Amino acid sequence: MGHNSFGNAFTVTTFGESHGPALGVIIDGVESGFKIDMEGLQAQMNRRRPGGNPTGTKRNEIDELSILSGVYEGYTTGTPIAMILYSTNQKSADYEHLKDVFRPGHADWTFYKKYGIRDIRGGGRSSGRETSARVAAGALAMQLLAKRGISIQGGTVQVGPIIARARNWDEADNVMRCPDRVAAQQMVDLIEQVRVENDSIGGIIECRVNGVPAGLGEPVFGKLQALLSHAVMSIGAVKGIQFGSGFASAFMRGSECNDQRTSNGFLSNHAGGILGGISSGQEIVLQAAIKPTSSISRAQQTINKNNETTTLVVEGRHDPCICPRAVVVVESMVAITLLDLYYTAFGRT
Amino acid sequence: MGHNSFGNAFTVTTFGESHGPALGVIIDGVESGFKIDMEGLQAQMNRRRPGGNPTGTKRNEIDELSILSGVYEGYTTGTPIAMILYSTNQKSADYEHLKDVFRPGHADWTFYKKYGIRDIRGGGRSSGRETSARVAAGALAMQLLAKRGISIQGGTVQVGPIIARARNWDEADNVMRCPDRVAAQQMVDLIEQVRVENDSIGGIIECRVNGVPAGLGEPVFGKLQALLSHAVMSIGAVKGIQFGSGFASAFMRGSECNDQRTSNGFLSNHAGGILGGISSGQEIVLQAAIKPTSSISRAQQTINKNNETTTLVVEGRHDPCICPRAVVVVESMVAITLLDLYYTAFGRT
Amino acid sequence: MGHNSFGNAFTVTTFGESHGPALGVIIDGVESGFKIDMEGLQAQMNRRRPGGNPTGTKRNEIDELSILSGVYEGYTTGTPIAMILYSTNQKSADYEHLKDVFRPGHADWTFYKKYGIRDIRGGGRSSGRETSARVAAGALAMQLLAKRGISIQGGTVQVGPIIARARNWDEADNVMRCPDRVAAQQMVDLIEQVRVENDSIGGIIECRVNGVPAGLGEPVFGKLQALLSHAVMSIGAVKGIQFGSGFASAFMRGSECNDQRTSNGFLSNHAGGILGGISSGQEIVLQAAIKPTSSISRAQQTINKNNETTTLVVEGRHDPCICPRAVVVVESMVAITLLDLYYTAFGRT
Amino acid sequence: MGHNSFGNAFTVTTFGESHGPALGVIIDGVESGFKIDMEGLQAQMNRRRPGGNPTGTKRNEIDELSILSGVYEGYTTGTPIAMILYSTNQKSADYEHLKDVFRPGHADWTFYKKYGIRDIRGGGRSSGRETSARVAAGALAMQLLAKRGISIQGGTVQVGPIIARARNWDEADNVMRCPDRVAAQQMVDLIEQVRVENDSIGGIIECRVNGVPAGLGEPVFGKLQALLSHAVMSIGAVKGIQFGSGFASAFMRGSECNDQRTSNGFLSNHAGGILGGISSGQEIVLQAAIKPTSSISRAQQTINKNNETTTLVVEGRHDPCICPRAVVVVESMVAITLLDLYYTAFGRT
Repeated sequence: MGHNSFGNAFTVTTFGESHGPALGVIIDGVESGFKIDMEGLQAQMNRRRPGGNPTGTKRNEIDELSILSGVYEGYTTGTPIAMILYSTNQKSADYEHLKDVFRPGHADWTFYKKYGIRDIRGGGRSSGRETSARVAAGALAMQLLAKRGISIQGGTVQVGPIIARARNWDEADNVMRCPDRVAAQQMVDLIEQVRVENDSIGGIIECRVNGVPAGLGEPVFGKLQALLSHAVMSIGAVKGIQFGSGFASAFMRGSECNDQRTSNGFLSNHAGGILGGISSGQEIVLQAAIKPTSSISRAQQTINKNNETTTLVVEGRHDPCICPRAVVVVESMVAITLLDLYYTAFGRT
Repeated sequence: MGHNSFGNAFTVTTFGESHGPALGVIIDGVESGFKIDMEGLQAQMNRRRPGGNPTGTKRNEIDELSILSGVYEGYTTGTPIAMILYSTNQKSADYEHLKDVFRPGHADWTFYKKYGIRDIRGGGRSSGRETSARVAAGALAMQLLAKRGISIQGGTVQVGPIIARARNWDEADNVMRCPDRVAAQQMVDLIEQVRVENDSIGGIIECRVNGVPAGLGEPVFGKLQALLSHAVMSIGAVKGIQFGSGFASAFMRGSECNDQRTSNGFLSNHAGGILGGISSGQEIVLQAAIKPTSSISRAQQTINKNNETTTLVVEGRHDPCICPRAVVVVESMVAITLLDLYYTAFGRT
Repeated sequence: MGHNSFGNAFTVTTFGESHGPALGVIIDGVESGFKIDMEGLQAQMNRRRPGGNPTGTKRNEIDELSILSGVYEGYTTGTPIAMILYSTNQKSADYEHLKDVFRPGHADWTFYKKYGIRDIRGGGRSSGRETSARVAAGALAMQLLAKRGISIQGGTVQVGPIIARARNWDEADNVMRCPDRVAAQQMVDLIEQVRVENDSIGGIIECRVNGVPAGLGEPVFGKLQALLSHAVMSIGAVKGIQFGSGFASAFMRGSECNDQRTSNGFLSNHAGGILGGISSGQEIVLQAAIKPTSSISRAQQTINKNNETTTLVVEGRHDPCICPRAVVVVESMVAITLLDLYYTAFGRT
Repeated sequence: MGHNSFGNAFTVTTFGESHGPALGVIIDGVESGFKIDMEGLQAQMNRRRPGGNPTGTKRNEIDELSILSGVYEGYTTGTPIAMILYSTNQKSADYEHLKDVFRPGHADWTFYKKYGIRDIRGGGRSSGRETSARVAAGALAMQLLAKRGISIQGGTVQVGPIIARARNWDEADNVMRCPDRVAAQQMVDLIEQVRVENDSIGGIIECRVNGVPAGLGEPVFGKLQALLSHAVMSIGAVKGIQFGSGFASAFMRGSECNDQRTSNGFLSNHAGGILGGISSGQEIVLQAAIKPTSSISRAQQTINKNNETTTLVVEGRHDPCICPRAVVVVESMVAITLLDLYYTAFGRT
């Protein structure tokens, strides 16, 4: 399988460069006879799009989905579904000043070393824009999971030093997608300050899944947490992932960390809903660490193609904090992984 | 590919249950003509084995490798290498008291729900003993990487509240494999205390890789950190993983987190040696969160097959802290992943 | 990997339905820095297109390639290449009379049984038109193989009772792509007669590959002939495949069939250039049996959705003999397979 | 996936060299809770073993299966099943005379070219003995298919010029496994004559599958005939495969070759039970061309490692006609493929 594909029973293949003619995704293995909610798909696309969130970039892009195959009269046919996002803006001129220099924190240099070619169009394949194709696939996966009673909810739970204490998910329709309304406003204020300072800031995204039956996940290397980690860690900005008590487990005793249970159910969920790589029927809880956006309009030291030290100010309008938009990408990768494992464990019906 | 296999160009397939007749691994894709250092293999096996570390279980097991194929007169032939660990102790009697009850924090219940069968022999396939087969494959991978100038060093850097401050890797040959000699002794003392209290404790393992050339890792879903996360998170006790600054990135500004560079090299390594999913040539640094051992000799609430609440004391001699032995498993999975990606990017020569 | 994908190191994923908005292919794993000969690609597309051959259908379709990704300023970048063929004719009206009836020899019924849905648009995914996406990928593979000195030549060597005796490949630029000019003319005459009789006819395609170095193919299940068979047998009209002496081997003695050799080289090529699943350096020779086109304008018995017997005359202009166009598809699948194995054995440089 | 593995939902990985310590197979993806008929497994092993058939080699080997994992108290557990065949005869001395010379028709030379190493132990990995591991996996697959009402029957239908006319499968328990008792005796006589002449002879194996429901097979590249071809063509001695009318289709008109049908069913089966890559519910019929055994005790020209022409007489007792034993291998590969596709299409229950 190529490295631009993910999943076995529900296989997603993405292609396309930022500022190329189009991005797209081929989705193979979808059950037949499912009526796609096209408005729902587009709504999820809009949650991720640039300009769709006041904390993000001011660039305004429309991610309009075109479906080229696999759907007949609104229903899936069982054949591969191709979804395309044509670019409305292919101007590479904006990037001309980056032609010979490598942006700090970006993939410019490693791609150049690996491929011996420099595609300067907005980061090419390593751009965050690539994730729009994943969101298209993830949105479909979420609909197919919803049919099975499985729901996925992501949100920002930390930005810099601001940490959400509450988990009121019905409050999470704020611009931060944060389940703590008070923290959300503090995050927004901090991000605005960071923007003014021409800087960026990191955060943590939490994702919760409800309705997963016991039995998802395939030992040994197909463990649920292993595949979810593969999926979420394939998002460029993610630098860490944890399940349940995660890194806090390092401080714990077994007598505290073990989830005891009675005939009425589990008494805690330190495991994050997974035991031995298989879903236990509890809520699945994971967190992803998001690094600060690499593109900042501050002078930074870097090198050019001749390995000469130089100073770079990255121009353009970038998200000071990627979290609110990355929430949608995390949800998408979680959805893709869960549907893949659901099909594997329980078939397509 | 089956879910008991990992890797594409260097493919590892494990089999076997704890207390079954044998565990083993099939390694496919190895270059031909490589002289295996059999003593080196066995030495790495010994680092993981029960009874090999004073902080661990007092059970004393020998993991002696038998090679059944793929090697001729000491050299690899290019055909699959089968390595087997025959069990010297298959007594299932010790586990008879667990027949109808599900141990907290274990995979007993999820395996039972998924497969409808209860293999009580020491946890069967979900036992930590399964990882011995991975260590065999990992030990070979480490030799093949060493030939290419790549070295992997893991160690315990946290146990409960004891956190290693130093990174003196030449001190790491202590029982904790901790790069901070003072912290190591504190860890040992704490673990002994935890053992006396019939409890267990978690920790953090760090793994560093030196000598990786720029260019390893395949965007988009084959990103180096994504595959390493898949690999390391497939170890049962691992609840989280992070690269470079990891979760600390959430607190950072871009101006701090971006790794600037001059013609003399990078000025920092917050990225942990990976940019855009591709190795940058810097040291690769990752950490894995290890939960406290689930098996403790304390009364815990759980249920039996009839969903009746019951109280269980898990008998037997278990590791109060799995970190020193898990270090070897983390190293192994890192080695397997890196060699797979090395073969993919640069071929077998 | 999804079932609409083929290949490991050079991975081809196709999508699209006949008479849907578009067909396409995503090609993953291509080396970077290769200058694509776009005219050459289009020329190969034209060899397969309907209306491009006097023996075929009179329908005239243009298969114009659009490249959406993976190419920058004419050179491959190492990222996935998406090639799209937009449909100029999406009229489904022509197929309205087939809505409730299953065409003999077609996949109508099995797709309906499998997917519970009937996409009547020209056979949907099972149409021969699906192969146009493979030809696009195959044309690129042929260019990448040519760079390595490997050339692929296919031709029609049998149509009904007319069997080519000669192998003058420099004569094969006739409409049958037949390496025997005399037989070619007889084939054309026979096909015209078949067309007048509203019937169709089968044939045999031969494909030869020169310049393959010894060493291609991966035992055991990745044997060169196994993967080539997988590839070629995935073409809908192919009912059999053989290598070298193939089915004639059944009549042979070992003393005749073994290819003896001297220091000057092999004395024969009954093996068809493959020994033990690995290329020997000799010419690779394979043949594929092509069934007569299923769509014929003659009354045939079949059933409808209510399992009632009915009589059907398939309308429209179909190829009485698919061989000349299928030659291009066979070449394409051979090229895709060889490049995949070449990358696997020798890397991308 | 490594090239020594086959199948996606039911994955078979083989290892081991002829005259190495053991051969074996890891079977991943088997449903849990299935009671294995161990005597049935061994019986199928015995059908393939050397010395088990009077037309074959006089070498007498026992292929006794050891199961190392995946089975608990006689039932499958859902974890990988490891089956091992330990060698009782590892004498490499017999092969000493072959050390520097390449046997005609064998993989000696291509393995040497590919791997740069010469494992002279009975052909190593390319020996027919490798197929014993496949037969073990195939025997299990046949039991799992039988539970679902699917039966597989292979037989020899041609040896040299002797062609079976009848298809009386209840007569097929003769030494040739030939469904024509009269032809079977002629085949036996011919093989004895060939043996006396120190030669070998080819043949054709037919395999029929009954009870397959409509719906098996996954378009486009996962077509039933494509995967069956991959599987069967991975057997070293097979030089061709055809389905239904196969190569005879080349002579046919569409009006003859199309399988018409009425409400009472199909009127013919030229397609061999597959339409558009999906099983139609008809009997699946395929034939495999078997080349004459390469090892013959006649002087043949070949080269040695110094590329000097030399003459070789292969010593030892080899099968003059491999067909009766290869029947079992073909059945096995067909069974493995069908179960893989069955699990994919219909799940494990």
